[in-house]
Amino acid sequence: MDERAALGLLSDELDAAGDDAAVVDGLVVTTDMLHERTDFPRGTTRYTAGWRAVGASLSDVAAMGADATAAVAAYAAPEFDRDELLDFVRGASDVCERVGTEYVGGDLDGHDEFTVATTAIGRTDEPVLRSGARPGDAVCVTGTLGRSAAGLEYFERAADGGHADLRERANDLFQFEPRIAAGRALAPHASAMMDSSDGLARSLHQLAEASDCGFAIESDRLPIDDSVRDVTDGDDEALELATTFGEDFELVATLPKAMIPAVRESINVSVSVIGTVLEADGGITMDGEPLADRGYTHG
Amino acid sequence: MDERAALGLLSDELDAAGDDAAVVDGLVVTTDMLHERTDFPRGTTRYTAGWRAVGASLSDVAAMGADATAAVAAYAAPEFDRDELLDFVRGASDVCERVGTEYVGGDLDGHDEFTVATTAIGRTDEPVLRSGARPGDAVCVTGTLGRSAAGLEYFERAADGGHADLRERANDLFQFEPRIAAGRALAPHASAMMDSSDGLARSLHQLAEASDCGFAIESDRLPIDDSVRDVTDGDDEALELATTFGEDFELVATLPKAMIPAVRESINVSVSVIGTVLEADGGITMDGEPLADRGYTHG
Repeated sequence: MDERAALGLLSDELDAAGDDAAVVDGLVVTTDMLHERTDFPRGTTRYTAGWRAVGASLSDVAAMGADATAAVAAYAAPEFDRDELLDFVRGASDVCERVGTEYVGGDLDGHDEFTVATTAIGRTDEPVLRSGARPGDAVCVTGTLGRSAAGLEYFERAADGGHADLRERANDLFQFEPRIAAGRALAPHASAMMDSSDGLARSLHQLAEASDCGFAIESDRLPIDDSVRDVTDGDDEALELATTFGEDFELVATLPKAMIPAVRESINVSVSVIGTVLEADGGITMDGEPLADRGYTHG
Repeated sequence: MDERAALGLLSDELDAAGDDAAVVDGLVVTTDMLHERTDFPRGTTRYTAGWRAVGASLSDVAAMGADATAAVAAYAAPEFDRDELLDFVRGASDVCERVGTEYVGGDLDGHDEFTVATTAIGRTDEPVLRSGARPGDAVCVTGTLGRSAAGLEYFERAADGGHADLRERANDLFQFEPRIAAGRALAPHASAMMDSSDGLARSLHQLAEASDCGFAIESDRLPIDDSVRDVTDGDDEALELATTFGEDFELVATLPKAMIPAVRESINVSVSVIGTVLEADGGITMDGEPLADRGYTHG
């Protein structure tokens, strides 16, 4: 059984599962596990790892339209180096501070591969699910797409040693702002929302399945990050990366078109309208062509 | 730096860390990571693994005197077998149900070693810390000590194949009841509390350090589990296992002696008085001899 099938099984078994985060009693809870080999390319600092791991869980809280309350991490490594551990804690603490919440620690654990399990907790009385998109709604995305794809490319270019500048740039691109404030601003208006951690294309397929709808996306409206242009050769390749690589942790939301100006005024990041919600039989298209369900399958 | 030194470093860095669970804004949060090689002996079913992993985090919530609100787990394995995954979820759900809370799911993740990271969340307005023990208080422990030590011995005896009965007994011993209800009943009276996950001896040393006190323990008052007698040869070996093996997830609490009868009436498990809190210069003794800080160091 692959990961997606297994997740589907879990979601059938557990009432609270199946969205970006579980909701219980006004609390939003989400957990993720990341590993050195699959999630932290060579050159990723422990500061970036702490930022990114905790940020990924905060992004799931944001996707529910919730405010963040706290985050914890279990840190497993072959050995506990003082500087590495402090760097990790500082990265984890800084991403929490960025969104006005607190990193409150966690567990340490000996393990042969550097592995981090993070949990974030939030609160909301009205969680935004994946299941409410209505035909005619606008499809929006916060920020830009492709930063992580570009970051990975820089890490790869720097992998043969030296290139401190490329590694620094890659680490910068790997540190993202979890969209807690944007999620709070979108929540009162959004009919459906999730984060783009598996890539825009996969996110749209997941929203479509949960909401029983289709989407018409226009590629020239996608907010492709400038860094993507620097690491790709031409528009097609840039579009491909921005659509399918994922790990950008932006929000993908649907909402009535009339609400867009109000949302833009109350939000601290750009909100791009990238298309329209259709009836399910309209399918999921980009520029009129079917948009395949391709994306990052987390290792 | 070893795990204990690293935990000390974290506790210096983070205000909310350093007890069984972090407390933020009336919420109690705790996370743990467990691995097949170090935490789940051969023969441990996925049901038991789910029960035990989630139970370990619930035990930390209990140790704060908090009520449990929810638990999540990130489940990492080389492959996702439908039956194993469902067994795990059932074990995780059943331990939550046992203490009146809800298992709300989590994350799945490909990884070469079966690894589980669990997080439990609870609520309390008055957390019981490790730091309040007062000279003259009674030292209490809930339930019995040594179940996990006996369970491990049964797993080892069954490791060469066959022995379905031993493996079943071992799995039973590895499923414990997190002491949420007992923690709630102890909380109004307890001056200090923690769980015995690293063994009674180490727990006493940790309480003594946090509370700046000593302890006089009497070995004949220790509630040694009957299963320990079955796997050890004589009283000394039984006492050693019950004192140092740990992983029993019982509560160790200090409280005024006068409160013991009231606590016993309101609690669903035995409460043994095993000794008395001393001034710090009294040291930590068992039957008048120094009790060494030995115990299970989690891998």
